Amino acid sequence: MANRPDGRQLDEMRPVKITRSVSPYAEGSVLIEIGGTHVMCTATVEESVPPFLRGQGNGWVTAEYGMLPRSSSIRIPRESATGRIKGRTHEIQRLIGRSLRAVIDLACLGERQIILDCDVLQADGGTRTASITGSWVAMADAVRWMSEKNMIRKDPLLDQVAAVSIGISDGLPVLDLCYEEDSRADVDLNLVMTGTGCFVELQGTAESVPFTDDQLAQMITLGKKGIAELLAIQKRVRENPL
Amino acid sequence: MANRPDGRQLDEMRPVKITRSVSPYAEGSVLIEIGGTHVMCTATVEESVPPFLRGQGNGWVTAEYGMLPRSSSIRIPRESATGRIKGRTHEIQRLIGRSLRAVIDLACLGERQIILDCDVLQADGGTRTASITGSWVAMADAVRWMSEKNMIRKDPLLDQVAAVSIGISDGLPVLDLCYEEDSRADVDLNLVMTGTGCFVELQGTAESVPFTDDQLAQMITLGKKGIAELLAIQKRVRENPL
Amino acid sequence: MANRPDGRQLDEMRPVKITRSVSPYAEGSVLIEIGGTHVMCTATVEESVPPFLRGQGNGWVTAEYGMLPRSSSIRIPRESATGRIKGRTHEIQRLIGRSLRAVIDLACLGERQIILDCDVLQADGGTRTASITGSWVAMADAVRWMSEKNMIRKDPLLDQVAAVSIGISDGLPVLDLCYEEDSRADVDLNLVMTGTGCFVELQGTAESVPFTDDQLAQMITLGKKGIAELLAIQKRVRENPL
Amino acid sequence: MANRPDGRQLDEMRPVKITRSVSPYAEGSVLIEIGGTHVMCTATVEESVPPFLRGQGNGWVTAEYGMLPRSSSIRIPRESATGRIKGRTHEIQRLIGRSLRAVIDLACLGERQIILDCDVLQADGGTRTASITGSWVAMADAVRWMSEKNMIRKDPLLDQVAAVSIGISDGLPVLDLCYEEDSRADVDLNLVMTGTGCFVELQGTAESVPFTDDQLAQMITLGKKGIAELLAIQKRVRENPL
Amino acid sequence: MANRPDGRQLDEMRPVKITRSVSPYAEGSVLIEIGGTHVMCTATVEESVPPFLRGQGNGWVTAEYGMLPRSSSIRIPRESATGRIKGRTHEIQRLIGRSLRAVIDLACLGERQIILDCDVLQADGGTRTASITGSWVAMADAVRWMSEKNMIRKDPLLDQVAAVSIGISDGLPVLDLCYEEDSRADVDLNLVMTGTGCFVELQGTAESVPFTDDQLAQMITLGKKGIAELLAIQKRVRENPL
Amino acid sequence: MANRPDGRQLDEMRPVKITRSVSPYAEGSVLIEIGGTHVMCTATVEESVPPFLRGQGNGWVTAEYGMLPRSSSIRIPRESATGRIKGRTHEIQRLIGRSLRAVIDLACLGERQIILDCDVLQADGGTRTASITGSWVAMADAVRWMSEKNMIRKDPLLDQVAAVSIGISDGLPVLDLCYEEDSRADVDLNLVMTGTGCFVELQGTAESVPFTDDQLAQMITLGKKGIAELLAIQKRVRENPL
Repeated sequence: MANRPDGRQLDEMRPVKITRSVSPYAEGSVLIEIGGTHVMCTATVEESVPPFLRGQGNGWVTAEYGMLPRSSSIRIPRESATGRIKGRTHEIQRLIGRSLRAVIDLACLGERQIILDCDVLQADGGTRTASITGSWVAMADAVRWMSEKNMIRKDPLLDQVAAVSIGISDGLPVLDLCYEEDSRADVDLNLVMTGTGCFVELQGTAESVPFTDDQLAQMITLGKKGIAELLAIQKRVRENPL
Repeated sequence: MANRPDGRQLDEMRPVKITRSVSPYAEGSVLIEIGGTHVMCTATVEESVPPFLRGQGNGWVTAEYGMLPRSSSIRIPRESATGRIKGRTHEIQRLIGRSLRAVIDLACLGERQIILDCDVLQADGGTRTASITGSWVAMADAVRWMSEKNMIRKDPLLDQVAAVSIGISDGLPVLDLCYEEDSRADVDLNLVMTGTGCFVELQGTAESVPFTDDQLAQMITLGKKGIAELLAIQKRVRENPL
Repeated sequence: MANRPDGRQLDEMRPVKITRSVSPYAEGSVLIEIGGTHVMCTATVEESVPPFLRGQGNGWVTAEYGMLPRSSSIRIPRESATGRIKGRTHEIQRLIGRSLRAVIDLACLGERQIILDCDVLQADGGTRTASITGSWVAMADAVRWMSEKNMIRKDPLLDQVAAVSIGISDGLPVLDLCYEEDSRADVDLNLVMTGTGCFVELQGTAESVPFTDDQLAQMITLGKKGIAELLAIQKRVRENPL
Repeated sequence: MANRPDGRQLDEMRPVKITRSVSPYAEGSVLIEIGGTHVMCTATVEESVPPFLRGQGNGWVTAEYGMLPRSSSIRIPRESATGRIKGRTHEIQRLIGRSLRAVIDLACLGERQIILDCDVLQADGGTRTASITGSWVAMADAVRWMSEKNMIRKDPLLDQVAAVSIGISDGLPVLDLCYEEDSRADVDLNLVMTGTGCFVELQGTAESVPFTDDQLAQMITLGKKGIAELLAIQKRVRENPL
Repeated sequence: MANRPDGRQLDEMRPVKITRSVSPYAEGSVLIEIGGTHVMCTATVEESVPPFLRGQGNGWVTAEYGMLPRSSSIRIPRESATGRIKGRTHEIQRLIGRSLRAVIDLACLGERQIILDCDVLQADGGTRTASITGSWVAMADAVRWMSEKNMIRKDPLLDQVAAVSIGISDGLPVLDLCYEEDSRADVDLNLVMTGTGCFVELQGTAESVPFTDDQLAQMITLGKKGIAELLAIQKRVRENPL
Repeated sequence: MANRPDGRQLDEMRPVKITRSVSPYAEGSVLIEIGGTHVMCTATVEESVPPFLRGQGNGWVTAEYGMLPRSSSIRIPRESATGRIKGRTHEIQRLIGRSLRAVIDLACLGERQIILDCDVLQADGGTRTASITGSWVAMADAVRWMSEKNMIRKDPLLDQVAAVSIGISDGLPVLDLCYEEDSRADVDLNLVMTGTGCFVELQGTAESVPFTDDQLAQMITLGKKGIAELLAIQKRVRENPL
């Protein structure tokens, strides 16, 4: 049996902590810590939508993602300094945005945009999935803020959404990979699911060895266990007043 | 039952045609036509690798993707003119590159790089999956060229790779979506598989309605049927001399 | 006497083929093949003009030019990837645009713009002149499309326009240079002329050895012969219904 | 007498807190909190120097500065997304770098670079001065780390450095401006001083009303008081083991 | 006592010459020569303000700064060619703009912008201070032009503004550094003052050795002497008709 | 007969003045004034060549071109500020470079580059032709400087080169167009010729009305007259010691 670097069981998540209201300015803000991965997720409500949506009366939800230079063991040059947003960043931003839009009724927002900023303070694997799980809470708080300001009449939130990574390492499926596991996994699967158990995104990638139907099924089973735990934590932290 | 815009069965691919040697200059070149989607895939062999790989003796395979401005019904501004490569382009380039690297032994290439250029002449849905299926043939021809030049001793090709899109439209799973179907599908799944039936990439996205386990299973079944047909066509066109 | 690489006479054009309606989407589209040089020219009609022309009631014609990475024997990096449009590209785009505007009555177009996209699929010398010759046919077809849609009342086409390159190689003037000739010519002259035999553009460049009045006269004579042939081909292909 | 928004005396600093070792990866890392202004300062040691210094045997210290999008009450667009580093950012980065280089012996570092990344998590005035004060502690910890790794033989730290802002508001000089005060001050002075009481930088700007010799003298007096407090706090936090 | 490279006294300015109306096109234009430093300053009046000021009825003054490639002994690459405006350029542009805005009543301009372009034809130290001193004259001429065109009713000019650099070299304070002195000075102070003797900007930087209160006082005394001479020259050249 | 705005004869050049050694730093420098068009041309000798020429032992000559913002009646935004070099600038830079390379033996330079910077201080038509004529003198002075430094053994200058613009205005050919004439000319021809009367570049453009063989001949005749005058002036100013 594979020994995980931090001694976890194959189906065991790292400790998860979600702290709300970490910013005095943002309409919603969350610090999500999953083991050594810490992401600050803030939600901003803007009174405008991107050009392609103007004049249609519907809202939009989008996301931006960044890593602080020393969120990682090797310093990452700033994308502002290199002048180029990396393909990986684009890919993650688009994934977070799609995941959140799947559980919100954009028509209820009016011509407004919610921007989720996911900034990685510390990275130890699974930053994109942590960003989704944390952003949902920040978005829900921003929606509550809009409701309190009477900006919306109906609750646009259709469901919860959470995300987790699963991998195959030394031939065995493991839940919630830390950086060390992620960097030597054969397969990497990111799962984004709703509170009602449906798939929003399913992105499996064979980093080196292609995977079989059986392995896919095993990874999905593990992923569902992790998602269930994250959904419960989201619910619990949402019960507290801000 | 859903009526497809072109009268196809739910599990029916559009006509597929792969033409080799369409460029007098490239080391491998293919025009792949899948219905109204036409992609030119050229393979270039370069005697150098990206900086992060230098001095290790291994090779690399990468891809670039572009659309001609009028490959689409609405003119697409050139990314050179806007000065920005779109997130979608980055995402597709990375997907094609990973898919091809999964079936080639990079160590056998020596410090050389194969660049696959996928240029969409005409787009009618499924350009990224057509790019993967076509690029594999172009890459295989470039490998043969390297072999004839005695640049490599061992065949680096480990397997075939092909890709197809599946979607859920009006609640029904359909194979190989054309643009019209793609733009109103609830779910979009891109499947990349090897000749031996393993998964290389599995990217399912709920555009509007999240999907269930059953729907995932149905889409994978359809996808495997399409992949099998593409693998057979790749094999057949490879049998002819250039 | 100089031996041309492909055995042509000094005043002999390469085989020319113009195919119309090569795109299902563009308002006008042409594939022009001149020997080994293949350029796709598409015409797009847009319901707007550049900022400097707004509110004046007149139209505009402009052109963009690109080369596919393996249109050439050495792979050309994409201008979108380098983030810079090369000076050569700018120069060619401006030349094509000016040449077409010289034979169209912009006032008849209304506040609309015709964009000519010239994408080189295969390059063997003379891509800019082929782009002009092909673009005129694509523009003429776009004008016909506008007329059929009752967007314009009067035919804005004032004349035909075609272009050819002439050079001095080993001291002798030669018509329609292929890449091999172009790269070792002493002088390169691009001639753009109307159907009525007037000059639109005349760009002669001494790559290494300056040229005399006599040589200029000889090159113009050769060029007029080539232009006459191209004008006849344009006319002939325009006679067929689409 | 002027009433300060938070009830402070004219010569009273906001509460200052410096926490060391806030990053598991960086060679030195500090979170500095000055009232509502929170800046993370990390120090990275790199085994190379900028091109203009190569081959001379000396080291270099430089700084980069960024604000998280919701560190502010209005969301600040990412400089990576706009593709431009703002003039203000350049100005601040250069100021931090010069301030730190004034108190370190670059020759003792060998051909190595210390990069200070100052990322503003929350902004309430004085982010550039907080960045300098915090960065000195992070740099000192990075120097200690180098010393423990036997990378340097001699202590390159020549002195402490700290910084504070002073302003003239309603005609009165005030120490350590919060955002509300800063935005309506007539004069803004940033003072950077060493442990031995010398000036490293002195940047006074009349935002609206030019200032007199007397006002300059009063502001410098206030600034020295604040600097003394900051130097004492730097010393105290440095006494603890990491 | 320090010997200055050009034999000047410690408190002696280089010869100053301001020539007005050097451009036939600009609304105000000046060539300022301070020793070997020559800067062309042109003032442009535009009938619009930056977006953040629109609709408020107030005007704006801004500056841009550039160096001709061979204004310097080593050729400086064009910022248009590198695609990046350097931090130093940003810093200088902002300094010039702030300095001029301090002596003009923006409300009197109406929604108009005065742009000062400072282009260094020849650089021998002190280009930013020369730019400020020269720009004030160009701005004043542009204001006179506006007045003659009846664009403004009230004189918006509140005061003169001029600037000078002071340094500490070999321990001694010196006025108006030339390039050779500037590059080996321990301290560099730029002083911007009004006609009525108040400070607009005071930027002191310890390039290597931090400076004391006494040294600051000495430098300010020298600076005031230089400023007084510059203000007198500005006045004198303004007396002549254009 | 057409009346020229400044009363000149159709074949009359504006007053031409070439001043050498206008920069204390550049290896060659010239201010060329042709009527209201003033261009500073500086020549820089660099001990390196562009990457595509390295290791071949040959030199290179290249040019950069810029306009000061208020060289024109309407302010031209800086290309550094917009972040884009315009197509027109690229076109002119390439033209100047090619023209100079036509009259210099690059092999004699060794692996060195001469950069000609042409900066337009004041523009009144014909800036590109003035740049060529002035740059030749600056280049010749830089070559003399190299010779005096014993950097070259043989004189690499093969010939003189000068340039002039000719146009057709109100149906009549005119020499050396000022801005007002240029902007309403039907045809614009730029002629670059050597001291021995050969063509280096010939660029004729029909801005609105295509031109005939006769008109081309008339324009070339006028151009030769102008070129002859410019060559004589170049010769005369070169006779003086610097």
